Amino acid sequence: MAYGTSPRRIALVGIGKIARDQHVPALQASSEWDLAATVSRSGSIEGVEAHDDFDGFLEARPDIEVISLCLPPQPRFDYAKKALLARRHVMLEKPPGQTLAEVHELQRIAEKQGVTLFASWHSRMAAGVAAAKSRLVERVVQSLRITWKEDVRKWHPGQDWVFAPGGMGVMDPGINALSILTEILPEPVHLTAAELEFPENRDTPIAARLEFSGNVSAEFDWRQEGPQTWDIEIETNKGPLALREGGARLYVDGSEQKLLDHPGEYPSLYARMADLVGRGASDVDLAPMIHVADAMTLGRRVTAAPFEF
Amino acid sequence: MAYGTSPRRIALVGIGKIARDQHVPALQASSEWDLAATVSRSGSIEGVEAHDDFDGFLEARPDIEVISLCLPPQPRFDYAKKALLARRHVMLEKPPGQTLAEVHELQRIAEKQGVTLFASWHSRMAAGVAAAKSRLVERVVQSLRITWKEDVRKWHPGQDWVFAPGGMGVMDPGINALSILTEILPEPVHLTAAELEFPENRDTPIAARLEFSGNVSAEFDWRQEGPQTWDIEIETNKGPLALREGGARLYVDGSEQKLLDHPGEYPSLYARMADLVGRGASDVDLAPMIHVADAMTLGRRVTAAPFEF
Repeated sequence: MAYGTSPRRIALVGIGKIARDQHVPALQASSEWDLAATVSRSGSIEGVEAHDDFDGFLEARPDIEVISLCLPPQPRFDYAKKALLARRHVMLEKPPGQTLAEVHELQRIAEKQGVTLFASWHSRMAAGVAAAKSRLVERVVQSLRITWKEDVRKWHPGQDWVFAPGGMGVMDPGINALSILTEILPEPVHLTAAELEFPENRDTPIAARLEFSGNVSAEFDWRQEGPQTWDIEIETNKGPLALREGGARLYVDGSEQKLLDHPGEYPSLYARMADLVGRGASDVDLAPMIHVADAMTLGRRVTAAPFEF
Repeated sequence: MAYGTSPRRIALVGIGKIARDQHVPALQASSEWDLAATVSRSGSIEGVEAHDDFDGFLEARPDIEVISLCLPPQPRFDYAKKALLARRHVMLEKPPGQTLAEVHELQRIAEKQGVTLFASWHSRMAAGVAAAKSRLVERVVQSLRITWKEDVRKWHPGQDWVFAPGGMGVMDPGINALSILTEILPEPVHLTAAELEFPENRDTPIAARLEFSGNVSAEFDWRQEGPQTWDIEIETNKGPLALREGGARLYVDGSEQKLLDHPGEYPSLYARMADLVGRGASDVDLAPMIHVADAMTLGRRVTAAPFEF
């Protein structure tokens, strides 16, 4: 923020786990932003004006020019469309929608309205990602292997929507890895084969193995108890690189690299949103979501044991 | 073709049912094209130079500047990439690939090489489609219902690839309807829900019900014996429209419209390809394929009886 300008008012829609864990602390710690209102049927934040109806909020607070949507992907489109039609700038949690077509529609509306649309990918803001990307510019990638294994019970306790159609299942964490992949690789890749494990009683996969062109592969599993794994191992013509802990740590030739001081993923996302709004620009990169849609289209389905939280 | 110019040489790759039924007759009847070679491991066309190896063909016939690929979607990418890298103009049967990402990759290569890429949608060339589109410009669409029911045993006898991953199952005929939908509608729509029936022994659906925004729905079924149905019924503020027989017939307010004389779908596609090559342009519209990927991502899966040809 330029010295002396006042913070930009923003409203947060969908006060659930990710809002409390990430969005609220990031906004409250920022001098660029003023968290002026929340909209949620069930949650609120102490000291922040709370609305439970989105239409009512839009009418009551025309002065709030930026809206950040962190509700689940299934209802998100309707909110985003309303916000854009009311000429507000919109930031979307990942994934930016439950279909590609709806995000294309939001892009067209945002353009027409002359407002910012930011489809955020928080993992791209992890501390090691930019450094990994710049290292890969001078190297030839020979193979890349993603291992993304976490415990859905820990990260989405009781959140049945993650297994509902549109919730994407294990592709929801997996798309974080794919957002890093599509950010750091100098040349794009495409899916060539996939196997998806669907629990007998669920509509989306709990595990997936993906094969891409260029010797790139990914393994996602949501049944990992104990230590959690979010690793990307890269072999190059000049030795190995690795991103670990979801991109937070970078290793080159086996030794951990000292990274620049980093504000954190969500503070970085909101800094980027402030910059986009300031410049009147949008940022909607669907590459990670295209890989997921391709995997769901091309993937061979295997039935797995029923899953209960 | 401008009077006096000689026909453009073209090679057809993949001599199967669709090549014999559609591509060869369209090319042999055209004065714009000279079907100069075929490439196929199993088929050939009487009187046309036959190759069985694509690399060998590219080396032997640098004078053939246009290549039309009508092999199944699974192997098509590798052929398309090789052809583009050899600086040939490329026409793709529908669907243009087995993943969205691979088609984006082909687009980038074609642009870089300065050659034409045409992702063809033959149903868009059906006799009634352009007329339906122009009628809808002055009308408000209130609802649209697609019914696309055919007998896979009749249209793909013994072709197991249509049920393999990447073959798309019933989405393969369904995408024809979606290619018309995305051509004629004045405003784009997006999928909101879907149900997909997977035969117990197959990797792709045999039937699907799709719901879109804007009161648009589609029903695809590949188990239709007896009469075949390829209908689009549209209610508008100025009365009903219908496209029947895959777009070949147009009805307005219940009465069939006289359509202009029409060369047929594939002759129209090849006329379009000649025009694109002549102008140095490309035409790659992925909207129909995006709807399929969205349905495969968002669709609820239901198991159906095993299917054998």
